[in-house]
Amino acid sequence: MPKATRRQQPDTGRPSHGTVALILLLWLWPLWSHSSKGLKPVTVDFTGRIVTLAQGLEHPWSMAFLPDGRILVTERSGRLRLVENGRLASQSIFGLPNIISVGQGGLLDVALHPDYQKNGWIYLSFSAPGPTGMGTEVARARLTDNRLQDLEIIFRLERKSSTAHHFGSRLAFDRAGYLYISIGDRGKRPRAQMLHDHAGSIIRIHDDGRIPADNPFTSRPDAKPEIFSYGHRNPQGMALHPTTGQLWIHEHGPQGGDELNIIHKGRNYGWPIITYGVNYISGTTIGEGVSKPGMQQPDYYWIPSIAPSGMTFYTGDKFHQWRDSLFIGSLKFRLLTRLVLDGNSVIREEHLLRDELGRIRDVRTGPDGYLYLLTDAANGKLVRLEPGG
Amino acid sequence: MPKATRRQQPDTGRPSHGTVALILLLWLWPLWSHSSKGLKPVTVDFTGRIVTLAQGLEHPWSMAFLPDGRILVTERSGRLRLVENGRLASQSIFGLPNIISVGQGGLLDVALHPDYQKNGWIYLSFSAPGPTGMGTEVARARLTDNRLQDLEIIFRLERKSSTAHHFGSRLAFDRAGYLYISIGDRGKRPRAQMLHDHAGSIIRIHDDGRIPADNPFTSRPDAKPEIFSYGHRNPQGMALHPTTGQLWIHEHGPQGGDELNIIHKGRNYGWPIITYGVNYISGTTIGEGVSKPGMQQPDYYWIPSIAPSGMTFYTGDKFHQWRDSLFIGSLKFRLLTRLVLDGNSVIREEHLLRDELGRIRDVRTGPDGYLYLLTDAANGKLVRLEPGG
Repeated sequence: MPKATRRQQPDTGRPSHGTVALILLLWLWPLWSHSSKGLKPVTVDFTGRIVTLAQGLEHPWSMAFLPDGRILVTERSGRLRLVENGRLASQSIFGLPNIISVGQGGLLDVALHPDYQKNGWIYLSFSAPGPTGMGTEVARARLTDNRLQDLEIIFRLERKSSTAHHFGSRLAFDRAGYLYISIGDRGKRPRAQMLHDHAGSIIRIHDDGRIPADNPFTSRPDAKPEIFSYGHRNPQGMALHPTTGQLWIHEHGPQGGDELNIIHKGRNYGWPIITYGVNYISGTTIGEGVSKPGMQQPDYYWIPSIAPSGMTFYTGDKFHQWRDSLFIGSLKFRLLTRLVLDGNSVIREEHLLRDELGRIRDVRTGPDGYLYLLTDAANGKLVRLEPGG
Repeated sequence: MPKATRRQQPDTGRPSHGTVALILLLWLWPLWSHSSKGLKPVTVDFTGRIVTLAQGLEHPWSMAFLPDGRILVTERSGRLRLVENGRLASQSIFGLPNIISVGQGGLLDVALHPDYQKNGWIYLSFSAPGPTGMGTEVARARLTDNRLQDLEIIFRLERKSSTAHHFGSRLAFDRAGYLYISIGDRGKRPRAQMLHDHAGSIIRIHDDGRIPADNPFTSRPDAKPEIFSYGHRNPQGMALHPTTGQLWIHEHGPQGGDELNIIHKGRNYGWPIITYGVNYISGTTIGEGVSKPGMQQPDYYWIPSIAPSGMTFYTGDKFHQWRDSLFIGSLKFRLLTRLVLDGNSVIREEHLLRDELGRIRDVRTGPDGYLYLLTDAANGKLVRLEPGG
């Protein structure tokens, strides 16, 4: 009889394995359903030319295009280099401020004043030593021959610390001429939520370091007046949207929590209270979840994390199909990410150059309409992407 | 023997009741843990005087304080009234535009130009008829004696419809002189996500109706250039933060989904894709959940919904303990809500005047530092709150 052949399970008073599996499934469902909502990146072949303009750069971090065609390149080890006519000048630039190069710190970003042609100001971000450790500072100076002159420090992270990671340190000017500086949480998560602490924030100052009167926290005695937005982990990409003029950033998150964010005055971007990421190694959750009233959602996020670095809206005329796309380097996956946008929405993610160049530290649209990349290595390169085969 | 007394359950192959309860608990946990995070409102006695300045107002909606001490009051039925020396003028003002008064529509907001003393412009929002139904329009005009002159329509909702609810229609000027107009979704949820549709958005125009060149969607041929933010359900409160100058709004949500939002250029506030509310009556969920990348979280939300209307930051000097608090009327609970702020965060919610005045439609700080309220009724009142007993 069929009934007799049915396998008898002892009534242990505990739920069966099937029930346990069901409970686990329901418990994990919200996590799974969240992570499945991202876009699936598409791997695309780059069919153009890759022209190496310079090599032997020691962990190059950023670049700036001088109007005379020369390119300034920072090396994290603390040197500022010049590339001229496709050749790296052997002599590096003198007269830099006091820079401490350790871990992720060193000489980091370089940017030109929007009116550089008139005033000659070059801006540098770097890790500077202090009595309690190190932290980001920003200087401006003028370049004469091979030397920086008129150097002045216009921003100092106040609470320096001994941790050697999460410096942030990207620089960007907006159309009104304000200078934005990204500052990481310095490896101490709660600092990103503290308004009396520069760490974990986007800073906004005038070109000479003065604090804009309309910064969001100038009237709060308990807040640093330079802070424009906060709750950031380690932002290492900033660029101005070519049509809206809004500031876009990305930031390294924990596992699954790299974020793309449009920056709005005074907003809290949530780290470490909310994140789509989880702790590395343990996989345990961080903070309170993925959202909270009063805190910004990312505009896009990466699962898995790509370790983003550098960022540019492609505004050149050499690659028509790339027009107004957002390009971001990936350190971890050794590739270049292209985000196709519809307004402010990311509608497609492409992966280019995977494993062809190594870790990509910076990407910029050149004034000639080509795309320029820096690779992060002891023997790093400056390369230019050109169409054609 | 103890073992023999244990109640035997037949092995039915199905999970036990306890297991089912456990599954249900885990399943519902995310919902429950969300809803328990809000602040618990505190009921507070108002110990001051309530002075009635006018009654017999037919569903008054908004008020504006003229420099000469008179108060303009709109009646939803389509009349603009004057209160002078604590007396309602029997004659209403002539020369209004063509207004259709039905359901939640009619003559709604009134606001003065920031330079009213110089140019005399008074702004009115109202429901206007059109070939396909009705929708919000905004006019400006000058008041001479008892008559509006120089009247011109400076904004028209394009897609009018026959629904008689969710008009929004609050008006506010920012410090740069831009005029903001809140527009509801007209009872058709998907309209709030459509950029080619004014419904469900915050509009931003110049004082004469021209479109600001830096509006977020001016370069998109598929979008209405007047739109400043979108994804709103029915915003009926707007006020400028006294120190940051940012625009704050609230909006009627579905059950549990009333929201307080700080408005940022170009942002999507999520309705009806994300909301903390659920459908009335059925209690079923709406959209995709409470958060989504690229969409704004509310800065505060109400569970249960209070049906908010009117909003003012108290900037007067008559109630020192209320300084810089945010006051919002509640239609549903017939009370006045006070939100105590720490920066942009709501840290306490107080309920005042519950059932003492009825449905509160508008609340404003008067130029004399007192708080003024309008009650929503066929025999509505204008009252002034004063300290003391």
